[in-house]
Amino acid sequence: MIERAWRWLIDWIVSSASRVWKLGADDPRRVVHGAKVGAALTLVSLFYYMRPLYDGLGGATMWAVMTVVVVFEYTVGGCLYKGFNRATATLSASALAVGIHWLANQSGDKMEPFILSASVFLLAAAATFSRFIPTVKANFDYGVTIFILTFSLVAMSGYRVDELLALAQQRVLTVIVGIFICLSVSVVICPVWAGAELHRQIVRNMEKLADSLECCVEEYFSSGVVDQKSASSHESQGYKCVLNSKASEDSQANLARWEPAHGRFGFKHPWSQYQKIGGAMRHCACSVEALNSCINSEVKAPDPTKKLLRDACMRLSSQSSMVLKEMSRSIKEMTKSRSIDLLIEEMDNAVYELQSALQSLPSNLTPQMIAAEAETEDNKLKFSVIEALPLITVATLLIDISARIEGVVDTFNTLVS
Amino acid sequence: MIERAWRWLIDWIVSSASRVWKLGADDPRRVVHGAKVGAALTLVSLFYYMRPLYDGLGGATMWAVMTVVVVFEYTVGGCLYKGFNRATATLSASALAVGIHWLANQSGDKMEPFILSASVFLLAAAATFSRFIPTVKANFDYGVTIFILTFSLVAMSGYRVDELLALAQQRVLTVIVGIFICLSVSVVICPVWAGAELHRQIVRNMEKLADSLECCVEEYFSSGVVDQKSASSHESQGYKCVLNSKASEDSQANLARWEPAHGRFGFKHPWSQYQKIGGAMRHCACSVEALNSCINSEVKAPDPTKKLLRDACMRLSSQSSMVLKEMSRSIKEMTKSRSIDLLIEEMDNAVYELQSALQSLPSNLTPQMIAAEAETEDNKLKFSVIEALPLITVATLLIDISARIEGVVDTFNTLVS
Repeated sequence: MIERAWRWLIDWIVSSASRVWKLGADDPRRVVHGAKVGAALTLVSLFYYMRPLYDGLGGATMWAVMTVVVVFEYTVGGCLYKGFNRATATLSASALAVGIHWLANQSGDKMEPFILSASVFLLAAAATFSRFIPTVKANFDYGVTIFILTFSLVAMSGYRVDELLALAQQRVLTVIVGIFICLSVSVVICPVWAGAELHRQIVRNMEKLADSLECCVEEYFSSGVVDQKSASSHESQGYKCVLNSKASEDSQANLARWEPAHGRFGFKHPWSQYQKIGGAMRHCACSVEALNSCINSEVKAPDPTKKLLRDACMRLSSQSSMVLKEMSRSIKEMTKSRSIDLLIEEMDNAVYELQSALQSLPSNLTPQMIAAEAETEDNKLKFSVIEALPLITVATLLIDISARIEGVVDTFNTLVS
Repeated sequence: MIERAWRWLIDWIVSSASRVWKLGADDPRRVVHGAKVGAALTLVSLFYYMRPLYDGLGGATMWAVMTVVVVFEYTVGGCLYKGFNRATATLSASALAVGIHWLANQSGDKMEPFILSASVFLLAAAATFSRFIPTVKANFDYGVTIFILTFSLVAMSGYRVDELLALAQQRVLTVIVGIFICLSVSVVICPVWAGAELHRQIVRNMEKLADSLECCVEEYFSSGVVDQKSASSHESQGYKCVLNSKASEDSQANLARWEPAHGRFGFKHPWSQYQKIGGAMRHCACSVEALNSCINSEVKAPDPTKKLLRDACMRLSSQSSMVLKEMSRSIKEMTKSRSIDLLIEEMDNAVYELQSALQSLPSNLTPQMIAAEAETEDNKLKFSVIEALPLITVATLLIDISARIEGVVDTFNTLVS
């Protein structure tokens, strides 16, 4: 019994350890991020060990430590967003609170607690409500929290106004020291830019979409080869990442706006265009999903029927995925693509080709039709068309996908120009 | 010039005010939430006005105020999650820090700062890294921040161990007072339960999906009536809400797990089932999206061709949306549905009907075919089939959607049973 529990425990530890190890090995920047937070905190403590300011918990050190812990985010944009919010909210809330404190002082001892309580109630309620406004939510959510916090702390404190001013000055200074340490560590040691992450994610998702489109169609037409299927089916599921990427893209684009120029990204890099490309790609991935489920459905067209559209479909899917790959390459290297117009033209040609293959489908399906008698003929035709239905849907979806890819191209062109 | 700026300012103020007003009018609980935060803060201040504990900024009040500001979330689940995280993290980090402080004390004055700095570095790095582990991220993200914060504050403080114990006790007490006030205000005054929100969202999304499916198909077949289109097109876009609902559903399900039994929801209500239903619905919405873009595409089947499948398509879409609506009703009222099996059967019948209508499509398309000559015949057939292609795709997508609705039914059955 005990031995069993022991073995279970060891198994659990080994498996969790390997999972955690994999987490770090997949993206070593995560480990670096941990070390960066540790380094920033140690820096703060050193900074205060060397100065007479340091006088124990509750003193000024505290605000610097708290600032570092709370402001340090994974990306530089996150640090800047939180740092800016914390600094402005602390400043404005302190100023407002000192003002209201002075007002309450003037109105006599009896009224003072009422004025203070009422102002805390009203400001906290209004500020909390303002968090539901979308623009405030996106850009100042953290700032509102700090605003309420600082305002309540200062308004509720029993200090006189001149004491308050000294305290506020000290607190603002330590907060700024904390933010400064955060930002320098986050920018100097292996910086992770939200903008670069967004850029990379869009490029990767576009490649995944291209791969899964190509894989899907290849799998469908190369029926019989089962061994390859399991290997490639992982690739053909890539579109799912694209479908679920909205939340992370939005938050990265939001943070990227806070970042200064870095690397190949200028100051006013059009981050919202990336969101639009992401939206167009999700639109496209939706169709790939429909295609995928159509391909994996139980009703399958027989192989001879498939052969009729095989070449045209394969050509269109490979042309479409080439357009996607060329766009992804062009975004990755941030250069104008010379071949994209040519590739789009070829994709359009492939669409026409598939359309004409579809047009000639009925006559190809029924070569013996005219020879046979009228009744049988009709049945045969029925039979063939219903057999070809999944194939026709695959072809129409492919055409639809190519139209959606042109939607991606439009957003891409606005980004590049 | 000044007058223009003035008018612009007034316009801006009026338009923002009306937008903010709408925000509150749309969901008055938002206004109530603001008032709740204000009330909780005022309560804390009263609590401390009446007690001798109150001795200004930096004292014990501060922790209670901070706790209320930071822990108070919109939903009860959010409050519980943050409160629990804050309490356990403060406790465990304090205990660990006091232990390490004692250890450092024992090892002499020279080693002390090194041991403390090293422990802060290591623990902060490890804890920050642990936030990348999905389970930690989902359940203890806030706790980890507080753990690092408390540990660093205590470890860096210059106090002796017995002083630390008194401080830690005081801080834990005030934090608990803050959490208690938060939770009581959040549960007593108009509580917003994350679970109930999730429940409502799933029900509403299912209705939207049903409406947009029906609207889409109706619009397609009732061509000519343009006036209705703008009115109904708002409804037909409802599936987009479903597509983008993953992030909010996940976070609500996460918070709902922290909530105790409330209203009609028992203690171990299967919240993860709601996530699965949401996933199945998104799968379905993807197909509705494909259907929608197929319907709005430039290539349209001519009206006489449309008429051939009109009844079968309309019947399937209305049956499908009836199944969705019945499920939504059953989830809403939390009762087993008696009619759902019957409705599914009817939906399946509608699928067969549409399939047989598809089978007879070619013979209906070419009634004059047999009479005509071989060559013309062939051309006519070509022409008709390519004309009917969008229609065939619409029909296949409808069949696909009904298959996906059965996927939703499967997850629904596990929830209900």
